Amino acid sequence: MKKSINAYDVAKKAGVSQSTVSRVLNDYQFIKKETKEKVLKAIEELEFTRDEIARSLANRETRTIGLIVGDITNAFFSESAKVITRIAQENDYNVILCNTNHDEESLVQYIDSLKGQRVDGIIIAGADKDNKKIRELFDQHFPVILYNSIIEHDKANYVAVNNYQGARLAVEHLYELGHRDIGYIAGPEKYVTTHLRNIGFESALTHYNLKLNPNFVYTDEFLYEKVYAFTKKLLRQPERPSCLFVASDQMALAVLDAASSENIEIPSQLSVIGFDNISLAGNSYIGLSTVAQPMKKMARLALENLIVIMERKSNKEVSTLPVQIVLDAEVFSRKTTGVR
Amino acid sequence: MKKSINAYDVAKKAGVSQSTVSRVLNDYQFIKKETKEKVLKAIEELEFTRDEIARSLANRETRTIGLIVGDITNAFFSESAKVITRIAQENDYNVILCNTNHDEESLVQYIDSLKGQRVDGIIIAGADKDNKKIRELFDQHFPVILYNSIIEHDKANYVAVNNYQGARLAVEHLYELGHRDIGYIAGPEKYVTTHLRNIGFESALTHYNLKLNPNFVYTDEFLYEKVYAFTKKLLRQPERPSCLFVASDQMALAVLDAASSENIEIPSQLSVIGFDNISLAGNSYIGLSTVAQPMKKMARLALENLIVIMERKSNKEVSTLPVQIVLDAEVFSRKTTGVR
Repeated sequence: MKKSINAYDVAKKAGVSQSTVSRVLNDYQFIKKETKEKVLKAIEELEFTRDEIARSLANRETRTIGLIVGDITNAFFSESAKVITRIAQENDYNVILCNTNHDEESLVQYIDSLKGQRVDGIIIAGADKDNKKIRELFDQHFPVILYNSIIEHDKANYVAVNNYQGARLAVEHLYELGHRDIGYIAGPEKYVTTHLRNIGFESALTHYNLKLNPNFVYTDEFLYEKVYAFTKKLLRQPERPSCLFVASDQMALAVLDAASSENIEIPSQLSVIGFDNISLAGNSYIGLSTVAQPMKKMARLALENLIVIMERKSNKEVSTLPVQIVLDAEVFSRKTTGVR
Repeated sequence: MKKSINAYDVAKKAGVSQSTVSRVLNDYQFIKKETKEKVLKAIEELEFTRDEIARSLANRETRTIGLIVGDITNAFFSESAKVITRIAQENDYNVILCNTNHDEESLVQYIDSLKGQRVDGIIIAGADKDNKKIRELFDQHFPVILYNSIIEHDKANYVAVNNYQGARLAVEHLYELGHRDIGYIAGPEKYVTTHLRNIGFESALTHYNLKLNPNFVYTDEFLYEKVYAFTKKLLRQPERPSCLFVASDQMALAVLDAASSENIEIPSQLSVIGFDNISLAGNSYIGLSTVAQPMKKMARLALENLIVIMERKSNKEVSTLPVQIVLDAEVFSRKTTGVR
């Protein structure tokens, strides 16, 4: 890979700011002789030319990345943000974190605002499948990568888990424990991730020849209060599922909250399996069974690929194939699922 | 209060961007006649003058606030960030969220970066008491408010809970349940919040004439793994406390994790009380007893006061008294504390 040329490295090596590098190259007169020498020496040592650096400055990078997440109070997003921020800092990038609360208008505003702040690239976690604004970014070759989201677009870059397979694994896990009356807290269909989980869930039911009671399915928004209210109502019915597959650990916490408030014992009276494997799921006191996303690996891949995309752009290289990575899911069986 | 004059309101009313307002006022020639009329009409209707708006544009606000937090995976911070972002958006401010991982160098970098992006003001959650950079901001009259942090400085603005009283309430709660061997997961002393909790804790012990075993106290960093390892080791000792006061709910989760992994039953073998009242504490499945910070109220007060401070600055008003608000703490007794 061709080394990216940038004034940032020069500034860092010379121990000065990027603006100082710029002043030296523009022969600004009030600059100390020794500073000038330091900068020119750094350029030489890095095997750049004066012209290359001047050109890179004209198209200056901000070394800043935008990270847009759907809900920062969902530990899957906050833990991902923490990993992404740490790796970004190791690569000398700053991260601007934006929280949309799963609101599309807010997503559009943040994209505009980040572009206004001239970020070098954006990672978007929680994109709905038909989002026009994101399609535009891909059309414009703006450096963007989707994280735990997919958009069907031939230039779309994304890193995601295999949601279809993950949902199938959840059903398999419940089936093997003897469960036949499976309920499903799905969330809204407008995300490709939830859409693929839905297809995986249905295909597994067909595979095991199980029937789904439509009253056992939640397809409303990812709101704690709504999931809590739905679950409470469901568990008060005479006919109720023996287990629930919940499409995110965050929603699974709402389900456990509702079940406990109804004095329903977990897992003897209700088994619950989530999706994501937030760190709380592995907490021995809680022990939430779940379908794991390889979060740290996904975060690293998203960031490292974005860096490649940004460097390609900054070197005016023609972009090649999009980055489209799908990783395997895995079931972690803990305290909240048990034999029927 | 004098109404703040700004081009943003004009832009919004006219349905154009702030740059368009600027172009109109600078008699830019390639502007549509109807656009120009819309802008001038908006200025008139808002009872501003052309000059006022032109002046406000010269000192243009970005309508952006920086929010720096110590650890975004700590639900106290992510939940606060969510509330602050929502209220900010209601007031037409964007929020740039920065996660320092309790790293001072990172805090300094973020402050510089936010100033570089010309934010109108900054909210800092998780400031160590001796931070020079933050003192500088107050010296420079830059609009800053500390959230759940205190710095002793005559111009410091902050909104915090009464940490001293909160720690006393925790000890009182444990004492009334019959506990006499109290352990304390304190965290590092370098924050004024933890410092005040320490003083409150000690004063309550003195009040109840209790002795503290120094082996029962953790004063290392706010790191999950470290708190987990300390607790596991502590609980394996022949002499161990009957209860733990933990200075944050995030650390209390690590304590519960460690205790459960040692097959220690909560609360019959160990009572645990946290601090913060993150939403998970109120989850019926978890039921963490805790000392509550009035988080929503604190978030609202921090943001609303910051807006007043920013408007004062933008109108070149001389700043008056600093904002120094301390709110009462409250104990929530749930499943993790029981009678000795």
